[in-house]
Amino acid sequence: MSRPTPYEILNRKRRGEELPEKEIAFFLEGFRRGAVADYQMTAFLMAVAIRGMSPAETRALTTAVTRSGEQWSLRDHFPFIADKHSTGGVGDKVSLALAPWVAACGVQVGMLSGRGLGHTGGTLDKLETIPGFNAHLSRKEIVRCIERTGCAIATSTDAIAPADRRMYALRDVTGTVESLPLITASIMSKKLAFGASYLILDVKTGSGAFMSSPAEAAELARSLIRAAAGTKMKVEAMLTDMDQPLGFAIGNANEVIEAMAVLQGRGPEDVRELTRAQGERILIASGNYDLESAGVALDEALASGKALSKAKEWIEAQGGDPEFIERPELLGVPKHTLEVRSPRSGWLSSIDTAKLGMISVSLGAGRLQHHDPVDPAAGIAMLVPRGGEIRAGTVLAVLRWSRSSLDGETMAKKLLSTMSFADEPSPPRPLIQSLITEETE
Amino acid sequence: MSRPTPYEILNRKRRGEELPEKEIAFFLEGFRRGAVADYQMTAFLMAVAIRGMSPAETRALTTAVTRSGEQWSLRDHFPFIADKHSTGGVGDKVSLALAPWVAACGVQVGMLSGRGLGHTGGTLDKLETIPGFNAHLSRKEIVRCIERTGCAIATSTDAIAPADRRMYALRDVTGTVESLPLITASIMSKKLAFGASYLILDVKTGSGAFMSSPAEAAELARSLIRAAAGTKMKVEAMLTDMDQPLGFAIGNANEVIEAMAVLQGRGPEDVRELTRAQGERILIASGNYDLESAGVALDEALASGKALSKAKEWIEAQGGDPEFIERPELLGVPKHTLEVRSPRSGWLSSIDTAKLGMISVSLGAGRLQHHDPVDPAAGIAMLVPRGGEIRAGTVLAVLRWSRSSLDGETMAKKLLSTMSFADEPSPPRPLIQSLITEETE
Repeated sequence: MSRPTPYEILNRKRRGEELPEKEIAFFLEGFRRGAVADYQMTAFLMAVAIRGMSPAETRALTTAVTRSGEQWSLRDHFPFIADKHSTGGVGDKVSLALAPWVAACGVQVGMLSGRGLGHTGGTLDKLETIPGFNAHLSRKEIVRCIERTGCAIATSTDAIAPADRRMYALRDVTGTVESLPLITASIMSKKLAFGASYLILDVKTGSGAFMSSPAEAAELARSLIRAAAGTKMKVEAMLTDMDQPLGFAIGNANEVIEAMAVLQGRGPEDVRELTRAQGERILIASGNYDLESAGVALDEALASGKALSKAKEWIEAQGGDPEFIERPELLGVPKHTLEVRSPRSGWLSSIDTAKLGMISVSLGAGRLQHHDPVDPAAGIAMLVPRGGEIRAGTVLAVLRWSRSSLDGETMAKKLLSTMSFADEPSPPRPLIQSLITEETE
Repeated sequence: MSRPTPYEILNRKRRGEELPEKEIAFFLEGFRRGAVADYQMTAFLMAVAIRGMSPAETRALTTAVTRSGEQWSLRDHFPFIADKHSTGGVGDKVSLALAPWVAACGVQVGMLSGRGLGHTGGTLDKLETIPGFNAHLSRKEIVRCIERTGCAIATSTDAIAPADRRMYALRDVTGTVESLPLITASIMSKKLAFGASYLILDVKTGSGAFMSSPAEAAELARSLIRAAAGTKMKVEAMLTDMDQPLGFAIGNANEVIEAMAVLQGRGPEDVRELTRAQGERILIASGNYDLESAGVALDEALASGKALSKAKEWIEAQGGDPEFIERPELLGVPKHTLEVRSPRSGWLSSIDTAKLGMISVSLGAGRLQHHDPVDPAAGIAMLVPRGGEIRAGTVLAVLRWSRSSLDGETMAKKLLSTMSFADEPSPPRPLIQSLITEETE
């Protein structure tokens, strides 16, 4: 085969032909070197977004993006190391509790986390509300932190999959964000470069997820798993409910506090259940546990306080002061709070969770523009879960903010507009809908 | 409606939604001003190339590209002025004979012509082989030339549809050349900016055309006609055969000479027939002729020598020396010629006309790279038409070139490989396959 040109590759993808792995690698390598211009990459992204990609093409794209930067292969440093990724939701603080909990059971965990995107929160924004906490770790520092404490959560760096960063910036301005192969390559390139032994994916579905329907979420989960086929990383995916926020706290500091409450044996049941379920999968994947012993170990780590002290140890190892666990007010107190009360009796039948997330962002918990600061204490406390019975006047939620430009009554009205009420209880939705493994695929 | 963003417009087109006219205008206006970047335009071009465009969208795109530059509206200067466009072929020298022939019948003609593209020749390259001929005319000079002589053929300028030039350069490197709406907007934006009263389109079909099948060619013709609907320009299209070169001469100088031979009452029958048919349509469209009187006028202009003297007058008006009509050697003589003889007896049953065009380009008659010089005397003389009976040793064609780097025997072999031979005559193909007018659409 003679060397293809970017023109020919684009021409073929436009026509809907399947691209050979070599040509995808050649195109991405050209992009890295500057031989493929941004205006050719955007034509490629649009063609892929419309035509889709076969599993082989998606795998080739993911591999090529992975190879655009350093490949850390953390698994080479540890007998077993787990990674975790959530596709993003509202109130999802699972990673914060999961890492020390699993580490307390003797299984090592490392993650690279990002900032909030759109209506969803970001683990990095949450961790940075802890005084002194440093998420900017080098590969060496991550390895050392895991060696010392059993876990580390750091921010992704320019060294990891740099092509993804540039591609994402282009997708963001060309209407090519929604594309299964492009989402897959973006997520999995970073995970493959990090190189854990095992990755548990939390793929969200419901009104607060990027893929709202269960079918789309399952398709994404399968695409993510397939993209790692043939690599040394085992991947499993859990499809979980995001038709309401996870737990009570939405924001940053309040979510960190809620995650620590779980490790204190308190905290909302759904956060504990989901964190425990993901912990189980990791322990089993490590080969040191079976389903029964994994559950026992996790419960014991919680009851004995080992999980909590592991969390303190980890936070200290990354420079943070864990005193906030006993004194939550250290993470900041909002200037304003407002209780939002139910206008009627009945049942809280649905919550537009993405809209709710955007209200939290507006309150200061997230960014409308890239460089906006985040207000650690801002957010929402949701007091009634979906399906909960209410009376007129029941406090549904508490708004928390400090920006003087915001009008509480307006925000309260917006919050109520995300909810619908009914005269009958609605059927419950399972929190964990299914588990997709390489085997069952 | 709130102001759309380029992102939203791209997002919608990606999903296959029809874009409102306003949004297409907004996107193109953004591209003109620099608010829409090249990397957004290429995503748009790819989305359009894959999703296609409705007639309303194509019209909106054409209008927006037209408005990116000056609108000359030549029809405002003349009671009636005709324009002509060919979608491109091999040996197509019709414009050179058509303009003075029609002008000799008292109907004014103006055209903006381009250079050769791919395997096809360009009217501009042909005209520039005439010593002194100046195709770089301003709007004012074109008007003056038509007022004086009845016709003008100039080269398109940066003032006319500049967005098309930038879009074409981007299409050329992003695999988005083959797209009906993009081809339509590219051709028709320039024609609408020129602004004749009437445009006759010569849409080629066959092995030497960009749209090889009759169905695709008809679709292009209809798309081009529709793009001008609602404007002051009447458009008709002729579907004509390009399954073999038009006439005998392929090249530049030799094509100019052949076009003049037609005006001398000589020259190949197919060139004369097609030029006359297009002339008829123009004369009828002018309102001064009906079908019968148009034919009579054209035949009379030829027989009387009026068409030929009009050609001389026009060439002189554009600075050229018409002496070459009597002394063709003035346009240059190739250093090398080689007769290519038939390897067998039978019938010449098919010619891969695009390949033949590329051989002519290789001989020096066209460009492989943008800035290559063109050799005026290089090209091919085809001596046997498709369907012609031959004997072993019959001279099929004569190659003409001057570049010392070329090997004649290799070129002769390549030429023979474009042809197939048969033991039986093949059925003739009509030169003019159909006429598509706004009425019959």
